[in-house]
Order: sequence, then structure tokens, then C-alpha cells
Amino acid sequence: MTDASYPVRPETTPTRHRERVSYDRAAVHAVLDEALLCHVGFVMDGLPVVLPQLHARVGERLYLHGSSGARALRAAGDAGDGGIPICVTVTLVDGLVLARSAFNHSINSRSVVVHGVARRVTDEAEKRSALTCLVDAVVPGRSDHVRGPSGRELAATTVLALELENVSLKVRSGDPMDEEEDLTLPFWAGVLPLTAGAAPPETAANVAEGIDVPEHVRRWARPAR
Amino acid sequence: MTDASYPVRPETTPTRHRERVSYDRAAVHAVLDEALLCHVGFVMDGLPVVLPQLHARVGERLYLHGSSGARALRAAGDAGDGGIPICVTVTLVDGLVLARSAFNHSINSRSVVVHGVARRVTDEAEKRSALTCLVDAVVPGRSDHVRGPSGRELAATTVLALELENVSLKVRSGDPMDEEEDLTLPFWAGVLPLTAGAAPPETAANVAEGIDVPEHVRRWARPAR
Repeated sequence: MTDASYPVRPETTPTRHRERVSYDRAAVHAVLDEALLCHVGFVMDGLPVVLPQLHARVGERLYLHGSSGARALRAAGDAGDGGIPICVTVTLVDGLVLARSAFNHSINSRSVVVHGVARRVTDEAEKRSALTCLVDAVVPGRSDHVRGPSGRELAATTVLALELENVSLKVRSGDPMDEEEDLTLPFWAGVLPLTAGAAPPETAANVAEGIDVPEHVRRWARPAR
Repeated sequence: MTDASYPVRPETTPTRHRERVSYDRAAVHAVLDEALLCHVGFVMDGLPVVLPQLHARVGERLYLHGSSGARALRAAGDAGDGGIPICVTVTLVDGLVLARSAFNHSINSRSVVVHGVARRVTDEAEKRSALTCLVDAVVPGRSDHVRGPSGRELAATTVLALELENVSLKVRSGDPMDEEEDLTLPFWAGVLPLTAGAAPPETAANVAEGIDVPEHVRRWARPAR
């Protein structure tokens, strides 16, 4: 195991299709950076809760933010000492894998699962920096073209930080894997690749004339696969 | 509260933006049916785990399936009596909401959160029917053009069922909501709508000549928004 990989741990060792799992840091980073949002799981009153959140990766740290459930996450975090155990999962769907058998149907996808204890960001400078990264994670370059948060806004925002230590990536790609005896069945098999993109920007009704769609919005695209 | 809506419960009442929440069954169904996958959270050894899974809605029931973590989910389910508490979250991202202030940036999205106790489907007829629905949820009509599961395959597949009872939908749409005093700032504001689609199907290398891409694959599209 080199520095280029995350350590292999029981929580990040899947029970099936182990050949599809990777701990390569660069590959994990690429998936985290491409994904627009993540799903964050935590335990509240003994029960699981999963909420969509925005994330931004800064080196080996993830910052998380989302209005939905911010208070719930914060409350759960305050209940424990030092942070709240969370699971952050990011899934990119690349294609539908259509086999000759129902059983061998699958999804070409890349998913990252991160386990760890999230800490609430309280330091003002770190919080400001994290929010800048969160804005730029969604639209690169956007933070140079907005008003930054006021003190009141900063106080009203919950940002969590999670270190990337307990991490795994699962990748499924390529053709369907049919059983040998199914290859002569009269069914088509293959992959339907899925695409994601953007439609032309819609300028808000209250934008003054003369303020054009800026370059950072016009050139927006998710990283190529 | 009429039959057309899910009951309002503490777990499905958000702490913020309550005006964005709906319990309308038809609206919830539309989001569940449009989404290709969900994220399922459960508790294992006291810690949260979130895994992507495929889902198919049949009336007021969700069937869940995914190779990833199937064994973990099953084990967690076997540990309890009668089922395992899970949280199923589905998120559709419709657009990036770019405001004049960093604080008012947002995502236009529709997300459904379902809480409940999942039951493992053991009845063979129900399992077969659920798997057919799962295949057709991904590609409508596909199940008529595949070999159905053998007894061995059926036994190797874990399907969970979750009743839609404790359900909420959160919707954010429309223009950015800027502060009054920010409207004169020289920044562009608006929405970048996101799109999802499919590229041309890629026929598997081992498909015999003469087997063309079938209609149900060529016409594939997610439901329009």
C-alpha cells in the first residue's frame, strides 16, 4: 500500500465484486470533484437519515453544506462529543448495462463512500474559505462574481468538515457480462451511455440590462468522464 | 389532510424552508419514477452507511435492489426482528441557482425522503415480480426482451420492500432569491438548467449480426420534467 492509495479497512471492503473496488486517491478525487452533490447519512435517535448536500474537496478534506437538514445535522453533531459519525456517498451514473438475462443487468457507475466523523467548522476564516470552495465547486470561478457572506450569514450557515481517510471507490464499466449459455439468445445486449449537461442559462427577471451572462457561467460544464 | 397526501410527521417535517415541502402523493410518485437510483441509509454497528440502489415504485411500495451492499443490508436486516430501519433518499437536480450573494446560491432540485422499516422479499412470486419492475424501471419494456431469473439467480438476489407511508418531497425552483440591497450589485444572477439524456446505444461486442438495437432501447428517455 503506497501513499497514493487510501488504506483498506473492513468498512471499505465490499462484500461483493471486490475486483471493482479501488482505493486510489487520484481516482477518488476525480469522482468527488465531478459529482455535483453527495448523500450524507447520519444516525438520529438510532435511526438512519440521508440528505443531499453540496460538497467541495480541498486536498484530503471534504466540506459539506446544504440548507436541507443543516439543523438536524448540527443537532446530531452537538449531541455527541467532538463530532458526528457520517457516511458520505457520491454516485455518478455512466450508463445502463443491458444484458440478455435480467440477472446480469447492471449500471455502469462510479461511486465513492467515505466514512468518518464530521466536525463542525467554527473558525471564521476556515468557514469563509470553505464556503468559497463550495461555491466554486458548483460553478468554478463563481466566487469572484458574488458578494461574500456577511457576519450574520456566516453565523446562519452550517459547514461540516470530513477528512478523507476511510474511503473507497467502486467502478463498474464496459459491456454486459452475460452467461456463456445466454450468448445465443435472440436478445440485444449493450450499454446505453448516459449524458449530463446544461441548457442555456436563464437570466433572472430582476437583472439589469447590460449585465450579460458571464464567461464562468457560459463555459460551465461538469468535468469530462 | 386528504388521501391524496402522505401524513405529516415529525421525521418528515424539515427544520428549514417548510414552504418548500410537499406531501402530495402524485408529486412524490413522479420524482421517484423519474429518478434512476436512490441512496439508501441504514445503521450498522451503530454507524451510518449509505449505498446507491436501484428502486422501482409499485403503487405505494418501493422495491430496492443493488449488488453493492446487498449482503450488508441483508445482514443488517437479519439482525433485527421483522426488518431494518432505512432511509431512502432520491434527489433530482434541475438547475444551479446563481445569486448575487454567495449566501443565496442554491440548487433547483426535487428530493424525496422516505423513512421506514424495510422487509426482505422472500416470497418467490413477489420477488420475480419485483425484479421485473426493477428492470422496467430502468428501461421500460426491457423485461420482455431478456431471460428471466433462474431459481439460483433468484436465490442470489436480495430485494427489499418499503411501504411509502412516512414520505416527504422538497422542491426548490425558480429564480435566485436575492436580498433587496443586493439587487443593484453589478453581478449576473440566474439559473443554469441541467439536462440529462442518453448517447447512442453501444452494442456489446458479442452480439450476433442481425440483432438490431430494439425499439425500447432506442426510445429510452427519462420522463420529462
